[in-house]
Amino acid sequence: MRRELALHTDKYQINMMYAHWVNGTHKRKAVFEAYFRKLPFGNGFAVFAGLERIIGYIGSLRFSEDDIRYLSEQEENYAPAFLEELLQFHFQGTIHSMKEGALVFPDEPLIRVEGTIMEAQLVETAILNFMNYQTLIATKASRIKQVAPNDILLEFGTRRAQEADAAVWGARATYIGGFDATSNMLAGKLFGIPTKGTHAHSWVQSFNSELEAFDAYAKVMPDLVTLLVDTFDTLRSGVPNAIITAKKLEAQGKRMNAIRLDSGDLAYLSRQARKMLDEAGLPYVKIVASNDLDENTIMDLKLQGAAIDTWGVGTQLITASDQPSLGGVYKLVEIESASGEMVPTIKISSNPEKVSTPGKKDVFRIIGTNGKALADYISFPEEAAPRSGAKLKLFNPLHPYMQKRVDRYEALSMLEPIYVNGFQVYSLPDLSEIRRYHKEQLDLFWPEYLRKLNPEVYRVNLSQQVWSRKQQLLAQHMEPDIE
Amino acid sequence: MRRELALHTDKYQINMMYAHWVNGTHKRKAVFEAYFRKLPFGNGFAVFAGLERIIGYIGSLRFSEDDIRYLSEQEENYAPAFLEELLQFHFQGTIHSMKEGALVFPDEPLIRVEGTIMEAQLVETAILNFMNYQTLIATKASRIKQVAPNDILLEFGTRRAQEADAAVWGARATYIGGFDATSNMLAGKLFGIPTKGTHAHSWVQSFNSELEAFDAYAKVMPDLVTLLVDTFDTLRSGVPNAIITAKKLEAQGKRMNAIRLDSGDLAYLSRQARKMLDEAGLPYVKIVASNDLDENTIMDLKLQGAAIDTWGVGTQLITASDQPSLGGVYKLVEIESASGEMVPTIKISSNPEKVSTPGKKDVFRIIGTNGKALADYISFPEEAAPRSGAKLKLFNPLHPYMQKRVDRYEALSMLEPIYVNGFQVYSLPDLSEIRRYHKEQLDLFWPEYLRKLNPEVYRVNLSQQVWSRKQQLLAQHMEPDIE
Repeated sequence: MRRELALHTDKYQINMMYAHWVNGTHKRKAVFEAYFRKLPFGNGFAVFAGLERIIGYIGSLRFSEDDIRYLSEQEENYAPAFLEELLQFHFQGTIHSMKEGALVFPDEPLIRVEGTIMEAQLVETAILNFMNYQTLIATKASRIKQVAPNDILLEFGTRRAQEADAAVWGARATYIGGFDATSNMLAGKLFGIPTKGTHAHSWVQSFNSELEAFDAYAKVMPDLVTLLVDTFDTLRSGVPNAIITAKKLEAQGKRMNAIRLDSGDLAYLSRQARKMLDEAGLPYVKIVASNDLDENTIMDLKLQGAAIDTWGVGTQLITASDQPSLGGVYKLVEIESASGEMVPTIKISSNPEKVSTPGKKDVFRIIGTNGKALADYISFPEEAAPRSGAKLKLFNPLHPYMQKRVDRYEALSMLEPIYVNGFQVYSLPDLSEIRRYHKEQLDLFWPEYLRKLNPEVYRVNLSQQVWSRKQQLLAQHMEPDIE
Repeated sequence: MRRELALHTDKYQINMMYAHWVNGTHKRKAVFEAYFRKLPFGNGFAVFAGLERIIGYIGSLRFSEDDIRYLSEQEENYAPAFLEELLQFHFQGTIHSMKEGALVFPDEPLIRVEGTIMEAQLVETAILNFMNYQTLIATKASRIKQVAPNDILLEFGTRRAQEADAAVWGARATYIGGFDATSNMLAGKLFGIPTKGTHAHSWVQSFNSELEAFDAYAKVMPDLVTLLVDTFDTLRSGVPNAIITAKKLEAQGKRMNAIRLDSGDLAYLSRQARKMLDEAGLPYVKIVASNDLDENTIMDLKLQGAAIDTWGVGTQLITASDQPSLGGVYKLVEIESASGEMVPTIKISSNPEKVSTPGKKDVFRIIGTNGKALADYISFPEEAAPRSGAKLKLFNPLHPYMQKRVDRYEALSMLEPIYVNGFQVYSLPDLSEIRRYHKEQLDLFWPEYLRKLNPEVYRVNLSQQVWSRKQQLLAQHMEPDIE
């Protein structure tokens, strides 16, 4: 999956790098933080994902001779010495990040990049591109898992995914979020995700009759066979033929795995099919359903008593169709001044939620004595880290009068060091470990925060110092007009 | 951009290939057609794209030793001789396709694949993945172009795209659909798309003052500079500072290019900024706007008299956010029988639109004497191709009583041969040629078909033979129950 991605960036990054280089400020230290402002799908949390992809990108981030030749032809007329410097470029900065599978919330740093302004600027576009997509899809998958916690969930979206990377990295994200397998073989090979596949209508169409097609398929993989029963007519042809095939398998001492429904009313058809299978003495034959499913349809079908054991979810999942982007941003929070000190910076907006929070920050998850998360707490590294016994004031940064104090708690540091001065210090966990971590993370939260519709809002609080510095910088930039 | 993509397929393709192989039917000839059933966004047409990507895929389609090793570990227990055959695999079939940039419509073959059932099945997933995404995005771009035909349109979506391939191939699709440039440098390098970039808020934040930041940027690229004016306050700080910088440039005989608005009410702010720039004697400084734009917002802003010359469109375009997938399907229309003749096949559904149209088919665009498209006409290759002078009956396949006859017309054959027996016979046009072809295609259609909202429905008609064969196969499969 490695590919030369140095130019997978916005032109303005190159232009700003160049302008800093000309201006002599390109080596200034900078701190950027990546975060999102709003949860997708009205969900109560997001599931962080994309770090492995980001590490692959950062680790192999080099400009090729070809890239440099391309840059030399641009209308910006970049100086040859600048291009020469790009040819030598490799990332030498420091990155902290949430771990994949973590539950994350708005307005807290998910990834923190420290380095020269030049290198920290270059990586913005790709980091956001990777973090935004995988986090979005892992979150969508987690929502689906919430409504069908005990069923088998299969990711079937490749043909409707937004190109190949989305199919492959998206499949990975759904596995982090709780899915059990994917149909995409490349994702299976690259990441060790279990793969599953049945057959298509074309299999049935390529035989003289449906029964002949079923028998031929069953002969080839008797222990795994899942027969698609809606090529012609589900209840009048598909299910009866599948029963005949299953009975022939039984006669050979074998058990058919499942049938698959792919159209029509899945609640009605699955109940009828279940009844027909049971009456034929085939209670072990499972029912797989697919066809434009998402968490809402699955929940409704379950409420209506659908007899479905396994859900194949495609388009709606892999594109996150009800909200196909996470609005993650990457903001400069500190910059080295000419005299060498780090200065916090702010970005102001007429939209109050869009005002950035100045200064390099850490994130702690505060766990109460009952083992449940109370709030996330954001503070400066130079402050004493919260620790049990030290009273902690938790207040709402938009409405500071809403506050509470805790003194018995555990404070989990959420941002892991990934790169330190260009060296990777983090060992990539395998996917099973990430899935386990995601489950542990879910266990830290009361169900109120996890429900699909109108969840309780989890607190993300600022330390007094972080809050005060933000107010101070806001005031500084917003001095009233003297008119 | 080449990458080993043989496993970028659904597992059921491999399973069906294997089952055909075991069954001895894997060399049977098959014809599949890819098409969609419903236009996206309520648009009156779609813009076909993705062919170059598909050719890259087909041309390099090989299983590596690694792929085979991975397949050998699957629970399906594929026979070693089958895997050996995969290792030797290369595509030897025949492909016809619409040309990129063509206007295309529901229920007409866009890509037709003929080959052994084994090879034609393998390529389904990737072909749909590539065709669906690029066609979707080119169509979205074309909608935006419709509302701002004389403005400059920039694609700015990379950080919100669904992973890297979507950013890069999506940028290409927007260029086909009428955009003028992209911010993605990799897309620029790979496809020769012009690239554009301004600067981010972080540029301004990394200086002591906005004016210092503007002056520094203007010094580096005086002829290209576009200043982002909303870091602190657009009208009280950003625009006045940009004017000061522009005046300094003027004193050096240089002309600032533009300012960029990225938040707030773009109609109001652009009019005010235009007034301020004009009053300062800077009528040549253009205004670029960005911030969650799409065709609806752009049309409204223009109606409100926004003074915007250039539109930077990101998230909504690159994800096609109002409908992030095109539901393209790939259906078996003919299969070789045991006795070696090609037999048409059908897929039936309780949903009438989902019934497939049997038989291998051609598509003609029928152009009237006024140079405008009358209808698309689908017929079998063995029928006489429609030609002027030969009376043509055009009837609605769902409502055959709606018909008309034409005799003076031109019939353009829409499906180009791309591969013949595994050999590429099509020369890839460059993007400028594709853009030109797209414009010619638009010129063939009355504006009624092109409007954004409630367009007139363009006719896609079947020949009498195609229609009759479909009715015949439907009747054959739907014989009433004898109960």
